[in-house]
Amino acid sequence: MTAHEWAKTLQVGDGFRLSDVDPQSTPGYSGAKADGKRDLASGLDELNQLQERLFAESRVGVAKDSVLLILQAMDSAGKGGIVRHVVGGVDPQGVALTAFKAPTEEELAHDFLWRVAKRLPEPGFIGVFDRSHYEDVLIGRVRSLAPADEIERRYDAINEFEAAVAASGTRIIKVMLHISRDEQKERLMERLERADKHWKYNPGDVDERLLWDDYMAAYQTAFERTSTAAAPWHVIPADHKWFARLAVQELLLDALQQIDPQWPAADFDVEAEKKRLAAS
Amino acid sequence: MTAHEWAKTLQVGDGFRLSDVDPQSTPGYSGAKADGKRDLASGLDELNQLQERLFAESRVGVAKDSVLLILQAMDSAGKGGIVRHVVGGVDPQGVALTAFKAPTEEELAHDFLWRVAKRLPEPGFIGVFDRSHYEDVLIGRVRSLAPADEIERRYDAINEFEAAVAASGTRIIKVMLHISRDEQKERLMERLERADKHWKYNPGDVDERLLWDDYMAAYQTAFERTSTAAAPWHVIPADHKWFARLAVQELLLDALQQIDPQWPAADFDVEAEKKRLAAS
Repeated sequence: MTAHEWAKTLQVGDGFRLSDVDPQSTPGYSGAKADGKRDLASGLDELNQLQERLFAESRVGVAKDSVLLILQAMDSAGKGGIVRHVVGGVDPQGVALTAFKAPTEEELAHDFLWRVAKRLPEPGFIGVFDRSHYEDVLIGRVRSLAPADEIERRYDAINEFEAAVAASGTRIIKVMLHISRDEQKERLMERLERADKHWKYNPGDVDERLLWDDYMAAYQTAFERTSTAAAPWHVIPADHKWFARLAVQELLLDALQQIDPQWPAADFDVEAEKKRLAAS
Repeated sequence: MTAHEWAKTLQVGDGFRLSDVDPQSTPGYSGAKADGKRDLASGLDELNQLQERLFAESRVGVAKDSVLLILQAMDSAGKGGIVRHVVGGVDPQGVALTAFKAPTEEELAHDFLWRVAKRLPEPGFIGVFDRSHYEDVLIGRVRSLAPADEIERRYDAINEFEAAVAASGTRIIKVMLHISRDEQKERLMERLERADKHWKYNPGDVDERLLWDDYMAAYQTAFERTSTAAAPWHVIPADHKWFARLAVQELLLDALQQIDPQWPAADFDVEAEKKRLAAS
């Protein structure tokens, strides 16, 4: 299966039901954990080569392509591990990572897309959003942080925004890491049991956990309203961390293969420069 | 030798002469290339642990420490390799990298420190400047991009600025990667000889190379004027890439060991949370 075919199998299409996805499954992959780790390591080489070409094209001004990976998930689903083990394998010079927190007062004074637009990747870069404007239709909806008609408005606003971003040359990869409620409980419990993990635990995590079904419903609505041709959603079963990492790497590979960046030709006279350098 | 002792040997002190530094030397290290690569890999584990603690402290709001690595060098000296192979080994969630280019019109309309101040690392982060405000007293001086009295003013302005940054809790590590003129010629020639490296070559590189002695003099002046107790310079011989990477990693280790970040204590009732989680 090519990266493109695999990406398609993870994509949210018509009739998709989040509740049909088993968080322990490994769709599109028949290997076990050891295979997954090996394939992650070998995929990294290709990812690095493609990334360097993308970066190279932009440096000499011949390309305007970029990639934007949007990561959404319940707490402890593994966003951090994706950033560290998948994105972290790529040259940091070509990566622009933004972790979106609860909006500041200044951000709240603007439209919800304002802070997001400022962090879009430049040409040649792989942008990564750890949380995103989708918080504004997820926790925003579950916690009624905005009036219902404003939440409604946001789905269309997101689609228009993302369509414009995609048209400008950015491949948008939207990922929801899907863990089970049981797996989350285990992971949060581990954070409580280990003193070196206490900093990762927040009592608010349990508050959100108590609203699990509301969140799943909010995700389902987000998928139905914003999984578009220009910016489709992908739901990645994430109870197996190794699978989630491998799958996200595959989505990045697919996007870069579609861009198919090439080493840029020299825009100077190579032989003349060799002489000039030799004489210097 | 501890990381701190090693860092001291690389530090620019009174009476320092750049011309006395052999770019092929490996001060403070008696191993060869294979040893250096092994030590780089093993140092990475400690760097990661320290970085995670630093990040953890800031997440729960108990620390305001950060690290700022400033990289300066002639073209092809290996800044990119440092970012990729040293900084790239650290969790990207805790790294804030800025590559400073020629200033934009907006940046030029402000004081030269304006754009730099905006990119200082937040508490808990390792900030990395690929080029920096020192360009304004290096190419700025060599190319007379500002009046002489403005260039003069900048040294004191830098010292005041960096002292304030250091006082706020940021460990500043200033590094000049020092390659020889011959080594630069070889590296630039390789870029010309390989089609997949052409994008890294810029005819302007040779223009700057022709001003080599002026640049070395500008660096010497920068060291004399701005190597302070709060923010000392380090000159790293860089003809051997493996040594430069190892040495910069050691400087980062030293800074983090000095900070000595600790796992933060829980600011919630761990046992009560365990019960609440178990019931959820």
